[in-house]
Amino acid sequence: MAKSPLAPAQFPTLPNVAGVRFGTLAAGIKYQNRSDVMLAELAPGTSIAGVFTQSATRSAAVLDCQKKLGLPAAEGAAILVNSGNANAFTGHRGMASVEALTKALGDQLKLSETRIFTASTGVIGEPLKHEKISTRMPELIADLDAEGIAMAAQAIMTTDTYPKGASAQVETPSGPVNIVGIAKGSGMIAPDMATMLAYIFTDAQIEQAELQGLLSLLNEVTFNAITVDSDTSTSDTLILAATGASGHCVSAQNTAFAEGLHQVMRDLAHQVVRDGEGARKFVEVRLTGAASDQDAKQHAKAIANSPLVKTALAGEDPNWGRIVMALGKSGAAAERDLIKIWLGDILVAEQGWVAASYSEERGAAYMKNAELVIAVDLGLGNGAATVWTCDLTHDYISINADYRS
Amino acid sequence: MAKSPLAPAQFPTLPNVAGVRFGTLAAGIKYQNRSDVMLAELAPGTSIAGVFTQSATRSAAVLDCQKKLGLPAAEGAAILVNSGNANAFTGHRGMASVEALTKALGDQLKLSETRIFTASTGVIGEPLKHEKISTRMPELIADLDAEGIAMAAQAIMTTDTYPKGASAQVETPSGPVNIVGIAKGSGMIAPDMATMLAYIFTDAQIEQAELQGLLSLLNEVTFNAITVDSDTSTSDTLILAATGASGHCVSAQNTAFAEGLHQVMRDLAHQVVRDGEGARKFVEVRLTGAASDQDAKQHAKAIANSPLVKTALAGEDPNWGRIVMALGKSGAAAERDLIKIWLGDILVAEQGWVAASYSEERGAAYMKNAELVIAVDLGLGNGAATVWTCDLTHDYISINADYRS
Repeated sequence: MAKSPLAPAQFPTLPNVAGVRFGTLAAGIKYQNRSDVMLAELAPGTSIAGVFTQSATRSAAVLDCQKKLGLPAAEGAAILVNSGNANAFTGHRGMASVEALTKALGDQLKLSETRIFTASTGVIGEPLKHEKISTRMPELIADLDAEGIAMAAQAIMTTDTYPKGASAQVETPSGPVNIVGIAKGSGMIAPDMATMLAYIFTDAQIEQAELQGLLSLLNEVTFNAITVDSDTSTSDTLILAATGASGHCVSAQNTAFAEGLHQVMRDLAHQVVRDGEGARKFVEVRLTGAASDQDAKQHAKAIANSPLVKTALAGEDPNWGRIVMALGKSGAAAERDLIKIWLGDILVAEQGWVAASYSEERGAAYMKNAELVIAVDLGLGNGAATVWTCDLTHDYISINADYRS
Repeated sequence: MAKSPLAPAQFPTLPNVAGVRFGTLAAGIKYQNRSDVMLAELAPGTSIAGVFTQSATRSAAVLDCQKKLGLPAAEGAAILVNSGNANAFTGHRGMASVEALTKALGDQLKLSETRIFTASTGVIGEPLKHEKISTRMPELIADLDAEGIAMAAQAIMTTDTYPKGASAQVETPSGPVNIVGIAKGSGMIAPDMATMLAYIFTDAQIEQAELQGLLSLLNEVTFNAITVDSDTSTSDTLILAATGASGHCVSAQNTAFAEGLHQVMRDLAHQVVRDGEGARKFVEVRLTGAASDQDAKQHAKAIANSPLVKTALAGEDPNWGRIVMALGKSGAAAERDLIKIWLGDILVAEQGWVAASYSEERGAAYMKNAELVIAVDLGLGNGAATVWTCDLTHDYISINADYRS
C-alpha cells in the first residue's frame, strides 16, 4: 500500500522522555519481515491514565487494562502491544493469552502483573499465538532503548501507510517537561472513544486521578472527534503515562501542560485521519450556533459519517445539498431557514437556500484542495464542535473487500 | 447505468384498482427523452394515509403533505410527483412551487388544493421550474388511464435501474379487493422512515384512521427496516390510498388485508434494496434473542450500515469478526459469550469464539451467493428484528462521486 498523499513529509524527531524505554520484535504474528511487537518500559512512580473502546465486544486486553487502571502502585510499569491479531472474540482463550503475556513479562521485568498493560490489534476472532511473543521476552527486553520510539511507532501499524508520532515541550515553574506520543489507526475508526491505539508519554510528575481527568477531557475533542468510516474497533486503547522522571510537578490546572498535551493528542488524531483507508482529502467539519455542544457534535458527525457527503468529497463535487441532508437526518435540532453553510471561506447557503453570492465555479475550484473545511452555523445557540474526517474513495472499497481485519 | 443484477426478471403484471387512474408526462425537469412527472387521480371517498421523512430539512412537498393528511374529505384526490429535482432547501420558493402546482392541478380537476398531495425527488437545493409542469396539466390529465401504473413507476425513477411494482389480491367477506404499489429509491436510503417514494393503492373501503394505523405499523417492518447507505432523504414519502371503489369494507383487524398489504410493502421495500446503488448482494440481517425488539433493530442496523461489513460482503469474505465489531458498537445490550452467529445455515460463532464445526471454506463458498442471510442470536431475551441491506461496492463510489443528488 502506497503512503497516503495526506501523510506528513516525514516522521517527526521526538525528544526522549526520561523514564521510558522502547523495545520491538519481529514475532511473525501475522506479518513477515517487519516488527509486530512493541514494549514500553516505565520507571517506578509512573502515573497511568487510559481511555478505551466502549464496544460491548471489546477485546480481552481492553478488559484487562480497564481492570488495572487506577490501582495504586509505586513500582514501575510496562506496555506490551502486538499488531496482526486483535485477540478479540477469542472466548476464554483471549484472557488466557493476556495472562500468559503479562506473566512472562512480569517475571522478566520483576513487575506485578497488575502493572502490565497490553493491547492487540489486527484480525478479530482468531486465537493469538502468544507463545511467539512470550518465549522471546529476553530478546525484546534486550532491545529496550530510550531512543526507540520511532521503531515502536512502526511495530504497532496494521493497514497504516505511515507511522504516527507527535511531541510538545512545556515549561513548568520548576523547568521543562516533554510530552511525546505515537498512534496507529487507519480503518474501523469512529468517534465516541479513543481510536485504535495511541500511547503518550511525559516525564512530568502528575497524580493519576488528575492525569485521567485531563486525558478524558481532551480525548473528547481529539480522538473522539475523528471518524474514518463510522465503524468502531473492539480494541481502541489510549494510554497516557507520566513517569515523573523530570522531577517537575504539574497539576491538571496547569494550562501550558494541558495545551501541550492537547496539541500532541490532536496531532496524532489528525494523523490517523490522514491515513484513513483510501483517504485523499483531509476534512475539518466546524459546527457552530447549535442548541448545545452535544447537538453540534451530533450534526458534525452526521456530516462526517455520511457516505454521500464523503463520496462527493472524493468526486470533488461541491454538493452542499448532501450537507443539508446530513443535518436533516442527524436527529439534533436544526431550522432550515437559519442554517448557513460555508466551503472554506465561501458562503454557500443561507436563509434556507443557496446564497446569492455563491457560484458553482468557486465551489468546484475549492473542492480541488487536499485539505477542506466544511463550516456550518445553525443560528440557534452557542453550541459548537469540530470533527475531522476524510473522503470515501474506491481505495477504501479495495482495501476492505480484500483485507481481513 | 446497467440494470441491477438483483432486479426481478420483469416488471410484474399489476391488476387495475378501481377508482385510480395514472397519467405521465415528459416535462424535461432534468432528464431528457423520458417521462418525469406522474399523476394519480383518486375517486371521491378515497381514504389517504401517509408516512414521511423525519428529516429536519425535509422538502416543501413533504411539509405540505403532512399538513393535509387526515383532513376530512368526501371529494376525490390526486397525487402529483416529479423526478429530477427534490425542491428541498429551496427557501420560500419551495412552498411557492408546491402551491403553484396544486393550484394548477386543482383548477383542472375541480379539486380542493387540500386534496392534492405532491412529491419531488432528485437534486437538493436547486429551484423547481414548476412552470414546466403547471402549464402542461391538460396534457397530463388527458393521459389518465386506469392501466397506466407501469408508466407511472417509470416516471418517478432517478438513479433507479428498474421500475418497482407489487400487488396482492385479498378476499374479504363481501368479495375480493386489490392492493397495488409502486416505489422508487436506490441511494440516500436508510431506515427510520419511509424510503424515497412509494405509492400504494387499494379499492378496499377503509376508514382513514384505521388505514393510517395499519400503514404506520407495517412501515416499521418494511420500509423502515431497509438501508442502502445509512443516509436519509429529505423527500421520503409513502402514501397509501384506499378508493373504496370495490364496495368491499375492511377494518384494520382484517388479517387477510393486513397480510396482503404487508406483502406488497415488503416486496417494494426489497426491490428498493435490490436496486441499491452499486448493489451486487441482497442481504437479510435476522436478529433474535435481544433484550427488546428495539435493541434487536439497533443491532441489526449496526450490522446493515457498517461500511466494513458491507465491503466484506462485496469482497465475498466471510469476515464474521466485523459482525462482532458491529454488534459491539451498536450501543444496545450484548454479551460476548452468549452471541451466536450464522451465515445462512452455517453456525459461525458461539460461546465467545469461532464455532468448532465452522470451516472457512464453507463460509467462503456461502458468500458467493447473490442472496445472503446473516443471522445473530444474542441469547438475552425475546427481542427480534429483521433488516435488509446490500453490499458496498466500487459502483456506489462511482455513482456518488459523479451524480449530483
